[in-house]
Amino acid sequence: MTEPINKIAIVGAGLVGSGWAIVFARAGLEVAVYDTLPTVREGALPFIKDALADLQGVGLIDDAAQILARIRIAGTIEEALVDADYVQESVFERVDVKSEVSQLIDAAMAPGTIVGSSSSGIPASAFTQDCVNRERFMVAHPVNPPHLVPVVEIVPTPWTDKAAAERVRVLMERVGQVPVMVRREIEGFILNRLQGALLNEAWALFEEGYASAADIDKTVAHGLGLRWSFMGPFETIDLNAPGGVADYAKRLGTLYHGIARSRKEPRPWSDELIARVEDERRQVLAETDLSARREWRDAYLTRIAAFRKQSGDKGDA
Amino acid sequence: MTEPINKIAIVGAGLVGSGWAIVFARAGLEVAVYDTLPTVREGALPFIKDALADLQGVGLIDDAAQILARIRIAGTIEEALVDADYVQESVFERVDVKSEVSQLIDAAMAPGTIVGSSSSGIPASAFTQDCVNRERFMVAHPVNPPHLVPVVEIVPTPWTDKAAAERVRVLMERVGQVPVMVRREIEGFILNRLQGALLNEAWALFEEGYASAADIDKTVAHGLGLRWSFMGPFETIDLNAPGGVADYAKRLGTLYHGIARSRKEPRPWSDELIARVEDERRQVLAETDLSARREWRDAYLTRIAAFRKQSGDKGDA
Repeated sequence: MTEPINKIAIVGAGLVGSGWAIVFARAGLEVAVYDTLPTVREGALPFIKDALADLQGVGLIDDAAQILARIRIAGTIEEALVDADYVQESVFERVDVKSEVSQLIDAAMAPGTIVGSSSSGIPASAFTQDCVNRERFMVAHPVNPPHLVPVVEIVPTPWTDKAAAERVRVLMERVGQVPVMVRREIEGFILNRLQGALLNEAWALFEEGYASAADIDKTVAHGLGLRWSFMGPFETIDLNAPGGVADYAKRLGTLYHGIARSRKEPRPWSDELIARVEDERRQVLAETDLSARREWRDAYLTRIAAFRKQSGDKGDA
Repeated sequence: MTEPINKIAIVGAGLVGSGWAIVFARAGLEVAVYDTLPTVREGALPFIKDALADLQGVGLIDDAAQILARIRIAGTIEEALVDADYVQESVFERVDVKSEVSQLIDAAMAPGTIVGSSSSGIPASAFTQDCVNRERFMVAHPVNPPHLVPVVEIVPTPWTDKAAAERVRVLMERVGQVPVMVRREIEGFILNRLQGALLNEAWALFEEGYASAADIDKTVAHGLGLRWSFMGPFETIDLNAPGGVADYAKRLGTLYHGIARSRKEPRPWSDELIARVEDERRQVLAETDLSARREWRDAYLTRIAAFRKQSGDKGDA
């Protein structure tokens, strides 16, 4: 159990799974990639090859070919898992799909193998309760794409072995990710709950006509988000009052409680509201340009990753 | 009224006012700086000189001395305002202080002069109602420090002349800031309401023991905040589902509504909770190290500003 993790299986080879393959192979580990769909399996290596070329282009890796050589495509789930120490499951986010795949993994995994799910909001207890090895299943939730955005939320189920969660934490640090330990399950975990809180306020401000979606976006992209890209919310406010966070809370707690109280009756985003946001976004960016803009986003995230490496601040905040 | 704005007065010469002096002088405008406290007035130029040296160090400006030469310290408010086209008021954030200073500005301003307040949450209607020239007062809220973080929220009062607000928007774009038009007053405006929504969820997650403050911070600094440093929340989700924002809302609206409903009874941050957050922060960063860490933050923001200029994305998102 205390042997270091060296062999990785990726189950589900879409964008998230392919990004994970890069994360582990980049750190020197052997990676087997499997997907039930042959076309997805076959598309993984060309995608990974392109992404590695981009990383090498900005100096984030030295030898793309060597990294690529550590990744192999497996034709069956058994072949992928035969000697895997750790399995990163990255299949479609739906309880029935995750349940079915978790049982296939459960049947094929070796004694001691640990499984992390890329689930972005569904707790693993909802899809691993019937697994024989369920004490070695948990959530290990990345941000897309994982090879460019380092955070990983580790969320154990009530039956997850604490030592297994700790081994995943150590693994993630070793491969250069930034693990966050969520102490017990909650819908949306930390990351998407924080995103959701800000989104709910953004949608409400738009609905009530205080600003356009574009102007709300600017407030984050040219204001709030700059500090949050290297300091979290607690450190930000700790530095924003002369006496630190308690001083800040005394000065501004009333304002923030007032904001919370003004949203006591949260409503779902209505179809009419969704249509208005969609309409504004499609005026800024046509539907046919969405995928080009996603490539722009990933190219920008690649440059940010290079900037952060150069600044030496990986894992520092 | 349609002459371009060329002469600026800064009233309140602390960190925010000094940063504003840099913003305007950097863009070629003449700036007069005033503060009621002689020690603050006298401290402004040395601070500005250091900040300009930092900007020149990373290639954000070419000639610090030339920019510094455009900034003069005024001995009285009348002297500062004598020929100012625009006044940026940046005094202490308290209604009585802002009221008193607004009346002094009101008495000294020339016909046609426009006044923007750096107020970060108090609407200008709360402190300009008795001004003779109140139709030319509004909020122009920056993030600290304004010469490194470009967003500016322009928030008119019910009596603000629309043409005056539009002139401030044009001025802010001209000097390289990113203006956001808030269509009517609301406590906290856009930026601090978005910050507050995320903070309230962060404090609740900490209070309920889901994660340490440090781990919640990591979730933002190595995850959420990376995308938000160049894309706002709406663009982020627009790119995060195959069919765009409406598709995203259909997939995840229920999750986010569930998160909102779980926080229907917002409580103020209690003294005991504040003490626990303060305690964790002080273990990570001693109170005596707060000001060194603030310098680190500003140095980091300076490098980000240089990175953004190099990436050519100022005002792009």
